[in-house]
Amino acid sequence: MVAPMSKLIVLEGLDGAGTTTQARLLAQALTERGRTVHVTRQPSDGPIGKLLRAMLTGEHAIEGQAIDQRTFGLLFAADRMDHGQREVAPALAAGTLVISDRWYHSSLAYQGTGADRAWIATANLHAIRPDVTVFLRVRPEVAAARRAAAGRTEELFEAIEMQRKVAAGYDEVMHKLAFAGERIEVVNGELPLEEVTSEILAGVLRRIGGTN
Amino acid sequence: MVAPMSKLIVLEGLDGAGTTTQARLLAQALTERGRTVHVTRQPSDGPIGKLLRAMLTGEHAIEGQAIDQRTFGLLFAADRMDHGQREVAPALAAGTLVISDRWYHSSLAYQGTGADRAWIATANLHAIRPDVTVFLRVRPEVAAARRAAAGRTEELFEAIEMQRKVAAGYDEVMHKLAFAGERIEVVNGELPLEEVTSEILAGVLRRIGGTN
Repeated sequence: MVAPMSKLIVLEGLDGAGTTTQARLLAQALTERGRTVHVTRQPSDGPIGKLLRAMLTGEHAIEGQAIDQRTFGLLFAADRMDHGQREVAPALAAGTLVISDRWYHSSLAYQGTGADRAWIATANLHAIRPDVTVFLRVRPEVAAARRAAAGRTEELFEAIEMQRKVAAGYDEVMHKLAFAGERIEVVNGELPLEEVTSEILAGVLRRIGGTN
Repeated sequence: MVAPMSKLIVLEGLDGAGTTTQARLLAQALTERGRTVHVTRQPSDGPIGKLLRAMLTGEHAIEGQAIDQRTFGLLFAADRMDHGQREVAPALAAGTLVISDRWYHSSLAYQGTGADRAWIATANLHAIRPDVTVFLRVRPEVAAARRAAAGRTEELFEAIEMQRKVAAGYDEVMHKLAFAGERIEVVNGELPLEEVTSEILAGVLRRIGGTN
């Protein structure tokens, strides 16, 4: 029998990197290994996350200009606090593994293109720290091609120029957070899907304890 | 003819201090003096402000615990950025006097009871700075009596203890911001209504230029 454990596992990467699919597959693999798993995402499904999703798809647009990235940075940080209190902390307290499709790394990479990254980090100072973060690294062109193949209508952030900035942001953020002691596994998200899944599982088990 | 001018005037104080009534009366007095005035409030009437109002009145409650004041602090800061971009900045750009019923001082005083005040100040770093802030100072007991007279329901003892902390927070915040160079007029909000109105008008005209 596997002892109950509560760890926060985060999957991160560009839109199109595969975080949503891989979060589901990782949950499946961990469940098969006897773990209790709760899958969640950011923006969350709580009240602030719902507003965020609406605003990101153009609802509540401001005429003639894009909504300030600093507004989004604060709103994401607020959602993260609320998501932590409302959903993640109770699941962890119940001894569950929590897998979140994105966490504050997204804010630093995305909103960091239009706002001071150190300031965004400060806004996220009280967020729950992940036990391990898997960064699914894909080139922005590959992510864009996947989004197009999936027939996704592009959100605010998805122009390729923008995605190149975000990709560079992710690289910098992951480097800095790893240097600061955060547990980060970088996985090549351009490998075949099954290989990505097994690399993620291996990386997660290495970090949280357990064998494949 | 009065030259157009764009200034942000903020009214601040405890619930029951009279900021809403006095914002309206100040707007009326300035309009009579030939100024173009736009009255607004925080939480704003934008998308984030609407969510905030709902959450403050208990919608989206988390079972068994109060929503973290740090969540509210970030959400108010997000609303303030959005309110600034969506409503206040355009009005100022059009040469209008803007009167806001509350601004970041409220966040510092209220959320400062449950979260680090310096951290909240940092979250509000990019908010528009008021040209003059009028602090309607009333004792927490007087504010509570007024709220009761207005038929507002609340648990009195709990409320008064909390309001004492908020009142102390306001005093400290106003002192510090004034020391840091912010233009703050302290008005005794316990005077008869008409006297409060005329003191506010005198204070505002002294700060923004113009005669009574």
